[in-house]
Amino acid sequence: MKLEVSAKIVYEVISPSTLILNVQPLKSAGQFLVEECMDLNSQLKMTELFAVTGEKRFKIIEIPDTGSLVINYHAVVETEVRAVAADYLDDIPISVMPVSALSYLNPSRYCQSDKLYKFAFHKFGHIDHAFYKVMAIRDWIYANVEYSGGYTNAQTSAFDTITEQIGVCRDFAHLGVALCRALTIPARYYTGYAYQLQPADFHACFEAYIGGYWIIVDATKLVPLNGLVKIATGVDATDTAFASVFGNLQFVSLDVAANLIDAEFRYIDQYTAEQGYAYI
Amino acid sequence: MKLEVSAKIVYEVISPSTLILNVQPLKSAGQFLVEECMDLNSQLKMTELFAVTGEKRFKIIEIPDTGSLVINYHAVVETEVRAVAADYLDDIPISVMPVSALSYLNPSRYCQSDKLYKFAFHKFGHIDHAFYKVMAIRDWIYANVEYSGGYTNAQTSAFDTITEQIGVCRDFAHLGVALCRALTIPARYYTGYAYQLQPADFHACFEAYIGGYWIIVDATKLVPLNGLVKIATGVDATDTAFASVFGNLQFVSLDVAANLIDAEFRYIDQYTAEQGYAYI
Amino acid sequence: MKLEVSAKIVYEVISPSTLILNVQPLKSAGQFLVEECMDLNSQLKMTELFAVTGEKRFKIIEIPDTGSLVINYHAVVETEVRAVAADYLDDIPISVMPVSALSYLNPSRYCQSDKLYKFAFHKFGHIDHAFYKVMAIRDWIYANVEYSGGYTNAQTSAFDTITEQIGVCRDFAHLGVALCRALTIPARYYTGYAYQLQPADFHACFEAYIGGYWIIVDATKLVPLNGLVKIATGVDATDTAFASVFGNLQFVSLDVAANLIDAEFRYIDQYTAEQGYAYI
Amino acid sequence: MKLEVSAKIVYEVISPSTLILNVQPLKSAGQFLVEECMDLNSQLKMTELFAVTGEKRFKIIEIPDTGSLVINYHAVVETEVRAVAADYLDDIPISVMPVSALSYLNPSRYCQSDKLYKFAFHKFGHIDHAFYKVMAIRDWIYANVEYSGGYTNAQTSAFDTITEQIGVCRDFAHLGVALCRALTIPARYYTGYAYQLQPADFHACFEAYIGGYWIIVDATKLVPLNGLVKIATGVDATDTAFASVFGNLQFVSLDVAANLIDAEFRYIDQYTAEQGYAYI
Repeated sequence: MKLEVSAKIVYEVISPSTLILNVQPLKSAGQFLVEECMDLNSQLKMTELFAVTGEKRFKIIEIPDTGSLVINYHAVVETEVRAVAADYLDDIPISVMPVSALSYLNPSRYCQSDKLYKFAFHKFGHIDHAFYKVMAIRDWIYANVEYSGGYTNAQTSAFDTITEQIGVCRDFAHLGVALCRALTIPARYYTGYAYQLQPADFHACFEAYIGGYWIIVDATKLVPLNGLVKIATGVDATDTAFASVFGNLQFVSLDVAANLIDAEFRYIDQYTAEQGYAYI
Repeated sequence: MKLEVSAKIVYEVISPSTLILNVQPLKSAGQFLVEECMDLNSQLKMTELFAVTGEKRFKIIEIPDTGSLVINYHAVVETEVRAVAADYLDDIPISVMPVSALSYLNPSRYCQSDKLYKFAFHKFGHIDHAFYKVMAIRDWIYANVEYSGGYTNAQTSAFDTITEQIGVCRDFAHLGVALCRALTIPARYYTGYAYQLQPADFHACFEAYIGGYWIIVDATKLVPLNGLVKIATGVDATDTAFASVFGNLQFVSLDVAANLIDAEFRYIDQYTAEQGYAYI
Repeated sequence: MKLEVSAKIVYEVISPSTLILNVQPLKSAGQFLVEECMDLNSQLKMTELFAVTGEKRFKIIEIPDTGSLVINYHAVVETEVRAVAADYLDDIPISVMPVSALSYLNPSRYCQSDKLYKFAFHKFGHIDHAFYKVMAIRDWIYANVEYSGGYTNAQTSAFDTITEQIGVCRDFAHLGVALCRALTIPARYYTGYAYQLQPADFHACFEAYIGGYWIIVDATKLVPLNGLVKIATGVDATDTAFASVFGNLQFVSLDVAANLIDAEFRYIDQYTAEQGYAYI
Repeated sequence: MKLEVSAKIVYEVISPSTLILNVQPLKSAGQFLVEECMDLNSQLKMTELFAVTGEKRFKIIEIPDTGSLVINYHAVVETEVRAVAADYLDDIPISVMPVSALSYLNPSRYCQSDKLYKFAFHKFGHIDHAFYKVMAIRDWIYANVEYSGGYTNAQTSAFDTITEQIGVCRDFAHLGVALCRALTIPARYYTGYAYQLQPADFHACFEAYIGGYWIIVDATKLVPLNGLVKIATGVDATDTAFASVFGNLQFVSLDVAANLIDAEFRYIDQYTAEQGYAYI
């Protein structure tokens, strides 16, 4: 499937600053980058970096002068979401997990899995197989947490959301990640573009490591899974923020878009468990 | 029913201190004080005070000299637990609640009801009548929180316990209080002596204001309700601690006892809802 | 000094609700109520209640019908701020404090003094006399916490503000209360109208119990102390909110005003310690 | 310098479990492994893994049978602590930091640097050069936080310690890491063996990325810097725990030792800033 994604970000530069920008789709097995272009309204030094883990690439931009900074990013991406029959997703013992998955069992700033052991065990411990545990986590979050902006902020964490039960995609994803980790299922935070997201914005969901695959899970059930374009995965929102500012930039506006270029779109919805398939 | 209660408290006095001691049974409609005696191993100035709300009485002890401080308290109390048929416990609108009950709708240090609204509404909002809501809260806590010492400490609050799901009577009571308040049911923390508590100690449970009565609720289900001797009620553990130390007293030991003087004891257990009765 | 205060509050009533309104100046030794009037745009049942502690009076309003609710409150108050020479403010030992002051040593929802002991002792423990400790607390907050809206919310507590160091009058007051209590100085939260507050709104500051008086302290240093009109004091923002809604009222607007009726106004600023006076 | 380190760990195995053991000294530029040996009291499957970042190596042990599990680890390590003159430690702009350092600017589970910006800026923002900022952080922690066991637990974080001001080496290290990150200085948690640590145990301190080096900092000032043997560095205690248990192992005992094999030992103390040197 071919998608065109774009982000326009405007800042007012108050003093010389450095900006780390994390808006470019990842180049991976499931994503092929057809073209991309990043335009700035002034000529600035940009460096592209790649995370050691291979889970994100980002640009560091040096901004020596004050004034308005306008960033226009645009890319065309070919994505392929693959279905895996749940029956093939065997539970993987700790002792044969790769190092890259093991590190995603640790609690993190916004996903305090160490405080959720009993809750997770009480609620999901009886369910056979990691895959069905994760589907139950997704459904519990969807059923119990109200999707609503304005209540949570940048400091809200999974430990808050599990009781406060209101939030946005970031909060849904943090809670999903934390509950998986509490059940010894490696899980990581996912950010990307999302086709059909209303209102248009960056989206967040999560991936759980099951049967040797990182399967994609979206507890908000807001968008089709095959309309996602991955920007990055990481421990939580801390290392996947679309922009990290060092200095003094005043945020002015953000416009995100994700449009289909292909003529046809076969919607793959969120109810994968019922259909017996996971998506990766 | 007649009970003999006692507490022996030993401190090592490191420097001149003041001690507020809150171990004396309350004199109330349901409790008649037959006799009491507080002995100290040295002659110290003691003042007895009464809370404005009438919910506790306590002693302030001035300790000018270092050395060992041994406090022996002993009382004989006649208590009467009354049963009220649940059918008589009408829900009381906010607009006719007395001021003394209204103040127990507020969140407090260990009972952050303001953060539990959605959880409480999702879990108990559909239940008709405040009394059955409170019984469901008690049963949910009993079913989900593990009674175990050593995991929680003096800073553990209801917001922790609702997710960490482990604790002692103090934690069970705080969570019960917080959930009631989140549902607009006034609730207060209760401390007292408890017949048949193993191991012997002070006990904590809570009272909910329903149908014009403060009914007693114990989510630990550890002791018979009619074996309780009330010391105090208050917002939470903050204003009902058995001892508050100002200065430098090193805690050495605490021995608490509650014994039946009456020959017979008809056990009133915790399963009052099933029987259609509340106890006050 | 004579002040005219008013508050206009507008709600959209979504479903039958009950509103507790706490906007009326307290009748006390330092405040004489010349006249007051509360007008509603529809005839509703209102009950006036008085806190047991004498620290607030409030109205309970029953709202059976949906639609717009407009509340207009207006009062004329004669206030008298008295100066007490700091030299007369002796430290009061715990053992002779009245019960009403003792209860203000406890931690509360937003003032977790139990977690601030070491900080308070390190920073202010060396200062002689409770009065100068409190002045140092006020000055430390003023110097270290940035006054700015939009960063904190209804769940922000003193334990957050002491490190996050940004907030509004509510946060300044909570931190002041918490630090006093951590030093065994009774302290309570104060809400009121404030002459010359820009932009006009309800104001929050705190009172510390020193030398037998509740002295007024404002760590924001935004307004003259003698332009304050007390509405209520309490443990913290939990029991002094201007409005508590039970039901479904949508907040529309709030307009607060405090104007001088007297011709002359002798400004009493915040720098009372330097001048050797406390204000009560 | 040559050191002999050892750890004896005993568990009672309640049910089949998996253990991740992180007690082996890292092989790095400053550490040469002369010999090592891990003995178990029964023949178990062990796998050695290496973190992608190169910052730790650890063993995964499968334990199929119940009973007593005794792990004896022993190693001889040649370490070299190098001094770098502080004058050579230039501040490094974000735009030229390596990816491996950038990731250590993010907040983590126990190091919530995102909540410490204002505190860090107020306290240390005026100090020139990252190196002297870090020395001031170390000295502030040493001066303000009391080293004492029993008050903190596995959930205590930097945000707690900054106000509660009491803790153990783990808490000192978390606070140091969090304050550095809040000042845009990459910092990571360090665990290791420590010569002359009383009582003997694993030790924790931290490393700050300054002038292109990871310099070692110990805010407890308990041990000589050149007596440290590094086991691992990581985001915080979450990914450097000496043991992570999956299953049901009951901890019985831990004995740690670190002894000098070399005849002579030139003590390098903690007061490096005064001497104008950093140690790496």
